[in-house]
Amino acid sequence: MKTNYSPGILSVIPLFYVGWADSVLGPSEQQLIIEKINNMPHLSTEDKTLLQSWTDQNNPPSEEVFKNWIHSLKLHKGDWAGAQKDSLIHLGLVMAQKANKDGDFVKNEKVFAALKELELVLGVEEQLNSEILSQTINPGKKSKEKQEVTPFSADQITDLLDAHNQELIRKIKSLISDPYFHNTAEHRRDKKVYRQRILDQAIKIADHKISFYPFPKEFDGHLDPEATTVIFETLALGDISLLIKFGVQFGLFGGSLHMLGTQKHHDKYMKDMMTLDLPGCFAMTETGHGSNVRNLETTATYDAVTDEFIVHSPSLQAGKEYIGNALHSRMAVVFAQLIVDEEQHGVHALLVPLRDKDHNELPGITIKDNGYKMGLNGVDNGKIWFDKVRIPRENLLDKYGAVDSKGNYSSPIKKSSKRFFTMLGALVQGRVSIAMAANSNAKKALTTAIRYALKRRQFSQTEGKEETLILDYPNHQKRLFSRLARTYAYHFGLQTLRNKFVHKKTDADIRKVESLAAGLKALASWHATDTIQECREACGGKGYLSENGFSDMKADTDIFTTFEGDNHVLLQLVAKGLLTEFRSEFSDGGFMSIVRYLGGRIGTSITEQNPYAIRNTSAEHLLDKEFHLAAFEYMENKLLYSLANRMQNYIKKRIDPNITYAKVQNHMVSLAKASIENFCLKEFYKAIEQLKDMELKKGMERIARLYALDYIHENRGFFLENDYISGNKSKAIRKQIEYLHSKIRPLAKVYVDGFDIPDDLLDAQII
Amino acid sequence: MKTNYSPGILSVIPLFYVGWADSVLGPSEQQLIIEKINNMPHLSTEDKTLLQSWTDQNNPPSEEVFKNWIHSLKLHKGDWAGAQKDSLIHLGLVMAQKANKDGDFVKNEKVFAALKELELVLGVEEQLNSEILSQTINPGKKSKEKQEVTPFSADQITDLLDAHNQELIRKIKSLISDPYFHNTAEHRRDKKVYRQRILDQAIKIADHKISFYPFPKEFDGHLDPEATTVIFETLALGDISLLIKFGVQFGLFGGSLHMLGTQKHHDKYMKDMMTLDLPGCFAMTETGHGSNVRNLETTATYDAVTDEFIVHSPSLQAGKEYIGNALHSRMAVVFAQLIVDEEQHGVHALLVPLRDKDHNELPGITIKDNGYKMGLNGVDNGKIWFDKVRIPRENLLDKYGAVDSKGNYSSPIKKSSKRFFTMLGALVQGRVSIAMAANSNAKKALTTAIRYALKRRQFSQTEGKEETLILDYPNHQKRLFSRLARTYAYHFGLQTLRNKFVHKKTDADIRKVESLAAGLKALASWHATDTIQECREACGGKGYLSENGFSDMKADTDIFTTFEGDNHVLLQLVAKGLLTEFRSEFSDGGFMSIVRYLGGRIGTSITEQNPYAIRNTSAEHLLDKEFHLAAFEYMENKLLYSLANRMQNYIKKRIDPNITYAKVQNHMVSLAKASIENFCLKEFYKAIEQLKDMELKKGMERIARLYALDYIHENRGFFLENDYISGNKSKAIRKQIEYLHSKIRPLAKVYVDGFDIPDDLLDAQII
Repeated sequence: MKTNYSPGILSVIPLFYVGWADSVLGPSEQQLIIEKINNMPHLSTEDKTLLQSWTDQNNPPSEEVFKNWIHSLKLHKGDWAGAQKDSLIHLGLVMAQKANKDGDFVKNEKVFAALKELELVLGVEEQLNSEILSQTINPGKKSKEKQEVTPFSADQITDLLDAHNQELIRKIKSLISDPYFHNTAEHRRDKKVYRQRILDQAIKIADHKISFYPFPKEFDGHLDPEATTVIFETLALGDISLLIKFGVQFGLFGGSLHMLGTQKHHDKYMKDMMTLDLPGCFAMTETGHGSNVRNLETTATYDAVTDEFIVHSPSLQAGKEYIGNALHSRMAVVFAQLIVDEEQHGVHALLVPLRDKDHNELPGITIKDNGYKMGLNGVDNGKIWFDKVRIPRENLLDKYGAVDSKGNYSSPIKKSSKRFFTMLGALVQGRVSIAMAANSNAKKALTTAIRYALKRRQFSQTEGKEETLILDYPNHQKRLFSRLARTYAYHFGLQTLRNKFVHKKTDADIRKVESLAAGLKALASWHATDTIQECREACGGKGYLSENGFSDMKADTDIFTTFEGDNHVLLQLVAKGLLTEFRSEFSDGGFMSIVRYLGGRIGTSITEQNPYAIRNTSAEHLLDKEFHLAAFEYMENKLLYSLANRMQNYIKKRIDPNITYAKVQNHMVSLAKASIENFCLKEFYKAIEQLKDMELKKGMERIARLYALDYIHENRGFFLENDYISGNKSKAIRKQIEYLHSKIRPLAKVYVDGFDIPDDLLDAQII
Repeated sequence: MKTNYSPGILSVIPLFYVGWADSVLGPSEQQLIIEKINNMPHLSTEDKTLLQSWTDQNNPPSEEVFKNWIHSLKLHKGDWAGAQKDSLIHLGLVMAQKANKDGDFVKNEKVFAALKELELVLGVEEQLNSEILSQTINPGKKSKEKQEVTPFSADQITDLLDAHNQELIRKIKSLISDPYFHNTAEHRRDKKVYRQRILDQAIKIADHKISFYPFPKEFDGHLDPEATTVIFETLALGDISLLIKFGVQFGLFGGSLHMLGTQKHHDKYMKDMMTLDLPGCFAMTETGHGSNVRNLETTATYDAVTDEFIVHSPSLQAGKEYIGNALHSRMAVVFAQLIVDEEQHGVHALLVPLRDKDHNELPGITIKDNGYKMGLNGVDNGKIWFDKVRIPRENLLDKYGAVDSKGNYSSPIKKSSKRFFTMLGALVQGRVSIAMAANSNAKKALTTAIRYALKRRQFSQTEGKEETLILDYPNHQKRLFSRLARTYAYHFGLQTLRNKFVHKKTDADIRKVESLAAGLKALASWHATDTIQECREACGGKGYLSENGFSDMKADTDIFTTFEGDNHVLLQLVAKGLLTEFRSEFSDGGFMSIVRYLGGRIGTSITEQNPYAIRNTSAEHLLDKEFHLAAFEYMENKLLYSLANRMQNYIKKRIDPNITYAKVQNHMVSLAKASIENFCLKEFYKAIEQLKDMELKKGMERIARLYALDYIHENRGFFLENDYISGNKSKAIRKQIEYLHSKIRPLAKVYVDGFDIPDDLLDAQII
């Protein structure tokens, strides 16, 4: 039995022992290990030769060698306790120091750094490995509990996430944590009971003037669009029916009264709308036309004789569909094709009274309950038809299109399509808000699932020992941490979107915000759906019980994927926005001009594609944000380039643009996704750049890296197809992802506690 | 303007015109096109040279050339009407025929075949292309309706899917289509009402003796395990609460009475159990131990003095959790650690009376309602605790472990772990059944979503024209058809599993069935969850309304992913099963023997990996089942090989197998998935092989191909990483997938109608 290894050899034995256990090393990894060994300042030439002989995958260390390693490890068993917990490197250094007391090992930073590099290349994660070692040296002995002290606190994360809105966020959380807002499973079962509770709760919110923020100061409001989105984001942590009720009354009904109406409307209705004394609804969507608002069929025809509009649903399919607040409303903002003197002026909004003071439907109005839904049963959705309903001329919300007493139509926006999109611009706030609400629910689901996984034990690693915490299973980490990382990334993307939304000025700003809002609404709502599902499964059968919150969260947020615009349709809008940037090149039909244009855009990322970078599997490179940013940028630009190329071919032949769009639909969806993820990654890294506290910065970087590598790994089909990365690099990325999981694991609680969701709102019995 | 193209050139102009519109062709595609051109029997050398000049991606046909093509197409506009609808090839042939009346074009099969090959290489799909052509030749004119006559009928598919169980399937469908079994949204809201209805409905099912099939003939049963699974699969098309109620009473409670009990138990309880006069439950799971049944804490201690067992829950956490039928039951099969004379004999099942005739809880029994759940609120789940409850000795279900009147324990199975797994073997039927029930629901969701997509129109391709059916959008096809294909594949996998389950004899058979049942239960339940979600989104807001069925389907089936074993845990079982085949090699520690063993297994698929095959992008190859089978086989074997390799490294060092398993968890899950998908593909192609009707065979092949290519494309990261396919091949696969979508589109209704789900069971207002 060889026991007299040199100090240099001893310093790497723990790493080699654990590393070799898990080594399915390719030739490039082997090459890298040798490089790292050769760079170690504390090894003799003899040491290096011996270590190199142990790196040959085709001729791995013999059983004899392993026994010698184990023997050395056992000899230094006593020292191990003194070494820094969980660190294979420190154990090695302590062993080396003991073998040569005069040597300079434990405190030598260069040696430590060299070993750290080797550890990264070996893909040796920390968490289960200390257990492997412990098993080897002290079979049957229980490894110590994880350290509880963390390098940064949950409060620090909360400060970062909530930023300057913290006060408002706390205020709302505290308000909706009040038992008054707690709807039990029993309350939620009966729609009549539930709807009444939600109405009462919405009134209570208005009593606290939470509903006043979006509106003008003359009505005691704040005209504060930032606060408006913060409110929506935070209310989303409570009952989603209340959130939607709030959104319908103050965002859609109130928003269109405010944004599409003029002073006369404000003076007459604003105050009552803000207090919910005038419950109203937003009657846009029709049964026959879901996402296709422009072609809706309801008409509003001006009758010069009586100076009225006649609002009419020409068919059953033209009925207004799925209108929130329909059962409680006394008034509706109705979107209809405006007809004056037989001329069509496109879609306009009008105020149509629905019910009298005693809540009886007015003549010509028919309202039907939509009945039970998958979720959101506290919201009273219904269908509305108009049978030649007469309303006074001044009920036209006439900011963008007016009819005077002589029956003349006028508008500050001449082009009808431009007018239409300007009116619809009001919807953008809804999309920003839904995206945020979706992400709030991803945070909520992850908080419950991760806290549960830190409590729940299942199966014993070793017979007779305490069962293992389920969060210590790599499979469980993979399921939850990848989603945790994306939730953080979307958070920072959404923060920037909010900022752009609040400060938008030019038409270009508005287009950018609309595009980002559409894209983030789509991705964040899918992400929430996926995350809640995974979290509920991660809690097993317990996740299925209503008492643990997932049930309602899942059912209520599910609608986010299709309302305020179907996600697939929205992503196509995003892609169209990206293509618009070089529309002029298209109309020329000049192919080369596009190539030149795009050449500029993908130039930078193409330079990344050198043969060395393609094959670079070093941990430094894989964890480097420059690699991540370049890869995301490359994917977006490459997809844009190939899409433009395909469309160019169609347009050259004067094929109807709509057919062209249909043919490249899937391509457009891919592009839009890549573009939004790229945006989020950039914003995430930008936010990290600002951090002063180094530990917090490291903590956030870890999450950003996981998000980036997960995404590259998810899309490795694309990157491999395009020779952006090699097969070995793709495998090396997988290893780094597991490494990051192991680094995140001890801080998992801090990362979710940072979301700062009160227990009353989590409302889960299992945690 | 060139108008005198030769007949040969004319024959390919439609293909070239449409093909070039969409051409982002790589060099290998270009090469293939030239090959195909050179093989065309009807082209002159001059024709070939001209056509080749048009294939250069770097120097694509000029605008002038396009104009000439359009001109030629317009000249033959009149003939186009005569050509076979939607076929670019036929149009070309008619044009050629007209240019040379003496030529042999239209009916020449060789020419047709050669053009067909070119069409495949160009990736020219049929559906939108005829519209492109129509736009070019007759701008503004509406293309004709799709042909309604289909090459095979829905009935043919139903015959194939239901096979020899058709009669029983029809009988059950007809029974549960009766209004008696229809639970409205209102019924489902209140758990008391709903549970009572479900209990009554379960009794009605028993009245029709549907519950008798699994049980011995002496009790008027059929002892027919095949019928039992067919019943479960078919009941799953109705209310899932009823399905689960049925499963709990007759499958779990009845099944354990039957399989774990002996004659004395059968004589005493069988009849009442079968008619539901004795409602019972299956009390296995405990709060503290979900999937870890072996370590449950409830004890059953033999008291020799009174000749009784004392059943006891030692802690709150030891309570039986989530027990279906807990509120209605009069008796429970309780799983407890059997203790006789202070010796532990492991988990055994005992009959414990819960309530008296008046439905009062018996002394020592505490039962609590689990309350509302995400779904399945017609099932009365509850928790049960036992406080030193005494039951007579004969209440031990003693087939596999008995205690005699002298207090001596005996068992036909000596080894306690083997005994445990034998007793649990009864669970396998549950997993087979759940997998089938899950797939039944995927069928149901797809039927509704596809039928709706064939009715719903949204957005116009061309201003003023009728709006487009949403199923005509490629994006919509992708979402629904990929899931349709997988549903078919799982169907055939499940058929074989059923067959193996019914005919299992040896221990090896049983292990195989257990492994397949675990794996298919996991994949089919995830697939159902995913499919229902996608289908609900594909129906927009309408999908969210309870009246359209997705809401309950989604909520009720969601539990499938975690009950009868958590999916992630089950997949690890599957992987362990695969590893077991060479366990002996492991214990030797002989690495080379494993390599030799596996070498044999992956040998065949490795031969596929020749440089030509890696780069082969021809449609013939990509659509060839040999390619598909080889790729699936390769993936499974490669993952098995690398997993064994990693584990070998751990085991060599005598690391605790449980730690080893934890470290390779994600790898195991990937392997298990690959293995089950491989199984399904093989079974799907085997079933197709049997088909006599050539059109039906073609129709099923198309679905199998889509399933295979979708899977390869989904996993292209793996295949590219391992150099199994080239980047160009991966891109070519994407094109073939879109081609298959366009072939499936005209038959979409037939494919879902083949599932033969009565409208009463679909219960969706939108279709």
